[in-house]
Amino acid sequence: MEAPAAAAAESSNNTNTNGGGAEDEGNTGGSSWWRLPERVWLSAVRSAETVARIARDDPRRVAHSLKVGLALTLVSVVYYVTPLFNSFGGSAMWAVLTVVVVMEFTVGATLSKGLNRALATLVASSLAIGAYKVASLVVRSEEAESILLVVFVFFIASAATFSRFIPEIKARFDYGVSIFILTFSLVAVSSYRVEELMPLALQRTTTIFAGVAICHCTTILVCPVWAGEDLHKLAANNLDKLAEFLEGMEIECFGENARSKNLEGKNFLHAYKSVLSTKDKEDSLCTVAKWEPFHGKFRFRHPWSQYQKLGTLCRQCASTMEALASYVVILTKSQYPEANPELCLKVQTTCGQMSLHSARALRELSSAVRSMTTPSSANNDLSAAMKAANSCRNELLEDAAQLQVMHIAVIGSLLSDLVMQINEITESVHNLARLARFKDPEKTRNDVVINVKT
Amino acid sequence: MEAPAAAAAESSNNTNTNGGGAEDEGNTGGSSWWRLPERVWLSAVRSAETVARIARDDPRRVAHSLKVGLALTLVSVVYYVTPLFNSFGGSAMWAVLTVVVVMEFTVGATLSKGLNRALATLVASSLAIGAYKVASLVVRSEEAESILLVVFVFFIASAATFSRFIPEIKARFDYGVSIFILTFSLVAVSSYRVEELMPLALQRTTTIFAGVAICHCTTILVCPVWAGEDLHKLAANNLDKLAEFLEGMEIECFGENARSKNLEGKNFLHAYKSVLSTKDKEDSLCTVAKWEPFHGKFRFRHPWSQYQKLGTLCRQCASTMEALASYVVILTKSQYPEANPELCLKVQTTCGQMSLHSARALRELSSAVRSMTTPSSANNDLSAAMKAANSCRNELLEDAAQLQVMHIAVIGSLLSDLVMQINEITESVHNLARLARFKDPEKTRNDVVINVKT
Repeated sequence: MEAPAAAAAESSNNTNTNGGGAEDEGNTGGSSWWRLPERVWLSAVRSAETVARIARDDPRRVAHSLKVGLALTLVSVVYYVTPLFNSFGGSAMWAVLTVVVVMEFTVGATLSKGLNRALATLVASSLAIGAYKVASLVVRSEEAESILLVVFVFFIASAATFSRFIPEIKARFDYGVSIFILTFSLVAVSSYRVEELMPLALQRTTTIFAGVAICHCTTILVCPVWAGEDLHKLAANNLDKLAEFLEGMEIECFGENARSKNLEGKNFLHAYKSVLSTKDKEDSLCTVAKWEPFHGKFRFRHPWSQYQKLGTLCRQCASTMEALASYVVILTKSQYPEANPELCLKVQTTCGQMSLHSARALRELSSAVRSMTTPSSANNDLSAAMKAANSCRNELLEDAAQLQVMHIAVIGSLLSDLVMQINEITESVHNLARLARFKDPEKTRNDVVINVKT
Repeated sequence: MEAPAAAAAESSNNTNTNGGGAEDEGNTGGSSWWRLPERVWLSAVRSAETVARIARDDPRRVAHSLKVGLALTLVSVVYYVTPLFNSFGGSAMWAVLTVVVVMEFTVGATLSKGLNRALATLVASSLAIGAYKVASLVVRSEEAESILLVVFVFFIASAATFSRFIPEIKARFDYGVSIFILTFSLVAVSSYRVEELMPLALQRTTTIFAGVAICHCTTILVCPVWAGEDLHKLAANNLDKLAEFLEGMEIECFGENARSKNLEGKNFLHAYKSVLSTKDKEDSLCTVAKWEPFHGKFRFRHPWSQYQKLGTLCRQCASTMEALASYVVILTKSQYPEANPELCLKVQTTCGQMSLHSARALRELSSAVRSMTTPSSANNDLSAAMKAANSCRNELLEDAAQLQVMHIAVIGSLLSDLVMQINEITESVHNLARLARFKDPEKTRNDVVINVKT
């Protein structure tokens, strides 16, 4: 019996873990320097392969890179064309800065950052000018005024920083708050130096708005990548993957040619695994999809959070599949004598029914989502599967005593697994203690004794 | 039988889901405007409570907010004190900008961002000056020169943006690359306007270094929050939580007062749940901990990635516990007649042994990690648990036929669960179809028919 769920989801996505394992492999040394050119060449080839794979996996990445280049070129052109340059003034660099930080992969993320930036700049500039006016009204001397402004900066920056710990603000306005702090500090601080504060603030705000406008136009008009569309496709794909697992189960485990011995290598047994690790991607896509305007078949207020609910259910389903997969592998590997063949056959038949009909129901749902048509409300496959599930439960319940022993046996078996896992944990802690040079308790005790003696 | 693992981990951390559920609750309306002041007051109280809770949960958040305020104040003072201001020139704003974006919660994150920023600025300025020199050597006319520079900006920005999709670069240098693009574009573009490029680039780089230095001093000297220490504590806490679950199991399920009926409300049954969702936190802490210098008991090259390995094992353990918890709850709720009481008693006793000894072994490990002492290598508790696990397995294997029926029954039971979950998925897709106004296939077909007729 393998440990179910979560653990598997981890293996797919741990670049960090691999990237940082250098501590353990310190003694590969004794490098032969004359093979250096060969090594350099090999690593160059490997890098090129990585780049090609990343581009092939999602060609929109290449398009995005070129889009960033394009947006920056547009800003530079604005800067170079002198009449425009004059109207933007020396703060044209703010447009460049805006483009670099605002351009994101999806339309939603770019819009969200751009609007955050524009709004935060406006609010912060107004507030800073207000603070400047208050300071100049309250005190007379220039020193006192600048001290008051620094005090304002201290308190407003602290309060705004704290607000970033509030989950609601963190989720939607994190970037906006940091721009707010930046702009407020800059305008408040520069107020002491610059006589004409209002025109400066106005000029900078205009430049930033121009930068944001260039970003928004580029991201929407040139090969747009809609977060909402990605989220929608992800939902349909998840449903398909769940169906794939059940189809495989039906054919390989409960069908006529069932009881094949080598299940572990089969693809269908891993179909659900990628579903388990979709949560983060789904959440971030959903957050930014809410900023996207009407596009394709999606309205502005499309019910994006429904996709999160659906995703949670799919992941729950996938983790039950994980448990199921490990039991099936054990069963096909074991060489038990046939016991209670009647019950086994009955359960096997209903299992086949359940898998087949559930898979069909899922396929219907995924194609409904894909084509954005309402799935038929009288789903025959689902009701057939539910019927089979009930009859399976009844068959098992018939022998209630059997069921109790089964539950106790499963608990015993899971606990034995736990002990083995704790054994691994112990080894891991010992490794950590060795590598991190933890104190040796024996030695420490001796030291203490010696200290007492001396 | 509940679906194991992942699903539970999700419930703990879904502010986004709740935050965005507004679509579904559109009809709370009919608001009575005279109750507006009351509502405003209530929501103000609620916000104050949230803020107080966030501050109480981790007082270091308040310290961090004040630190950001302090760092900005320091920069502002530098700006106001005129002799210093002259040496920094008009680019003092770059120091403000640096402080706002570089100050992070943990020392490691601040160091990582600061070093990224400093290094990227240096490299990008040099490269941009190089590009400027090349452009002025290759072509004669000013127009051609600026066109060439814009072309440089386009290609370098595109290539650098693409490099952010490479996982290794994304993990460690994402911020650095974005600063690289920014600085390169700014310097390359401004080269056309500013005659003395070198002094300008030098001045800006110096200012940014000063900002980074202020951030690093503030973050290390004033209430430092070490990511490494948090990671270390997280590991010990996870071990304790696993132990807590097993201790509860021993007392409530296998001990002398076992078979208590109301297990579901017990705390210990949820002890492991927070362990399941620690992966993201662990990964990000580990990434930044690697940037931290020697502090407390931690060396510079402390084996941080070991904590990730330990964390993966702990989460695997927690997901087995999840499966175990659901079986235990079912068993204590069920009213089966006693079947094979001899086997049940035997398994129960060994289960008690396994839980007790495993819990003790885990407690020893957690206290070893906490005090950073090597755990004793001859762990008596672990070997006792292993012995009990083996004897439990043997007891179960004695009745092999029983075991086969058990596995088949478990598979049948898991599949029935799956069908019920797919039923929920179906409902969720129907909800989505309704809210997103999917096309009705019937209607569409009729439309087509009409179209054909006309």
